Amino acid sequence: MSDGVFKRLERATAGESVALRDVLDALQFTDDGLIPAIAQRHDTGEIAMVGYMNRATLEETLTTGRVCYYSRSRNRAWRKGEESGNIQVLRELRIDCDGDALLLTVEQTGPACHTGQRSCFYLKVNGDRVTVTHSPERNPEDMYGSTD
Amino acid sequence: MSDGVFKRLERATAGESVALRDVLDALQFTDDGLIPAIAQRHDTGEIAMVGYMNRATLEETLTTGRVCYYSRSRNRAWRKGEESGNIQVLRELRIDCDGDALLLTVEQTGPACHTGQRSCFYLKVNGDRVTVTHSPERNPEDMYGSTD
Repeated sequence: MSDGVFKRLERATAGESVALRDVLDALQFTDDGLIPAIAQRHDTGEIAMVGYMNRATLEETLTTGRVCYYSRSRNRAWRKGEESGNIQVLRELRIDCDGDALLLTVEQTGPACHTGQRSCFYLKVNGDRVTVTHSPERNPEDMYGSTD
Repeated sequence: MSDGVFKRLERATAGESVALRDVLDALQFTDDGLIPAIAQRHDTGEIAMVGYMNRATLEETLTTGRVCYYSRSRNRAWRKGEESGNIQVLRELRIDCDGDALLLTVEQTGPACHTGQRSCFYLKVNGDRVTVTHSPERNPEDMYGSTD
């Protein structure tokens, strides 16, 4: 059973550990080979964005300490900030109970969002309206030659 | 273009708003009709869990103020806490820049995780090991007749 390692860890107590490789091998990637990865700012706890990783970009992120997603629109590895300079340095990587989601604690340089917004989650439901919570921090034209 | 409303909002400034219905109609659900929803504790900013919603459970959540996911394993609406009592009351619902992820700010009753852990993200990468960060707060046998 692919999630055997996660089942075993359900009853583990603080401090118990297993080999990283066994956990990586048991991760539940989608049929497309992807897993969602939430990026949370280490200092404020704000959610910066949600991206996706495949096994290779996850391993690259762990090795280099610089967050690398897999871009579904461009179908390739996407080193966050490679065009905009708005990189993410990994502080901590967590995995959820059944191995189908990742939580990255990051040091975010500049805005996290391609729009120049600090966070991608700038749309808030307000009764029967959706309101923009913040104005962009940077002008996207200053961040990219083309769209990130 | 399905994400037209999101494109238009990319350059909006704080306080601008659009009709909720137009945003719901433009959300990017997967081929399975789902969208990932991150639950964040309103008081501590901790990420409690990641679930999935379809259009119906999202609308139910907005209407009732009690978080209802769509369970992929059970193929049905899953009112969080319906067995365990560990419910989530919605404080705020946010949508990301391209409409393919939701962020729920919640009041979480009890542990968020079916294991009795406070958060589902209790596994932390530590070099070549993965360590359990906390012990369960509750015994799952006390939470369920069967597995939630």
